[in-house]
Amino acid sequence: MPIDTMRFVKELPLIECCTPIAGPALSSDDAAELERLFKALADRHRLQILNCLLQAGEESVCVCDFEAMLGVKQPTVSHHLKQLVEAGLLDREKRGTYAFYRLRPGMLERVGGLLAEPAIATA
Amino acid sequence: MPIDTMRFVKELPLIECCTPIAGPALSSDDAAELERLFKALADRHRLQILNCLLQAGEESVCVCDFEAMLGVKQPTVSHHLKQLVEAGLLDREKRGTYAFYRLRPGMLERVGGLLAEPAIATA
Repeated sequence: MPIDTMRFVKELPLIECCTPIAGPALSSDDAAELERLFKALADRHRLQILNCLLQAGEESVCVCDFEAMLGVKQPTVSHHLKQLVEAGLLDREKRGTYAFYRLRPGMLERVGGLLAEPAIATA
Repeated sequence: MPIDTMRFVKELPLIECCTPIAGPALSSDDAAELERLFKALADRHRLQILNCLLQAGEESVCVCDFEAMLGVKQPTVSHHLKQLVEAGLLDREKRGTYAFYRLRPGMLERVGGLLAEPAIATA
């Protein structure tokens, strides 16, 4: 995918249309969408990236910092970041040579909310 | 694994020792443990099983009901149920010929809590 189109990826309403698993019925389509979301989380490197961004709060973090933190090569870092952006969890911004990433505000809580039990979800 | 030892699987302190990803530092070991947990969730059939058990509340559901609901064969259902039990999300109970499953109370909320941002996690 050309880098320019990455800007549009973040507009996909992926999480917005997810049905919480506590909802009255989880269709095959809803389940497939949630599967994609949890797959984005189910990787140790991506979890460490998210942890780092949670520490950074509203600050953006440079792609080069993740490389040092994770001890993996740049293409691997880029692969993981792309998956998190496509899942709607991160926003990406190009500044000169480097790409910077930050958590999309509130998205992790929303994912956490998908797991709430009915009594809590409707409280 | 013999069926008898399945009773002990549920005692594994898997989630109890997970560090929330919003914590001050996510070690490689913590990240690997969270990866296993989210991998257990990242499957459409397992999400539909959890959805069904959320509807059932504190009731146990027979393995045979999942087979009808998911439209897959018994070995596939058993595979998914085993993964959810091993992740600490379900409890399993044998009643005569059939195994019955129920959500371990509060576990999904705890997983959701692992995703909370620091300000919320410490509130």
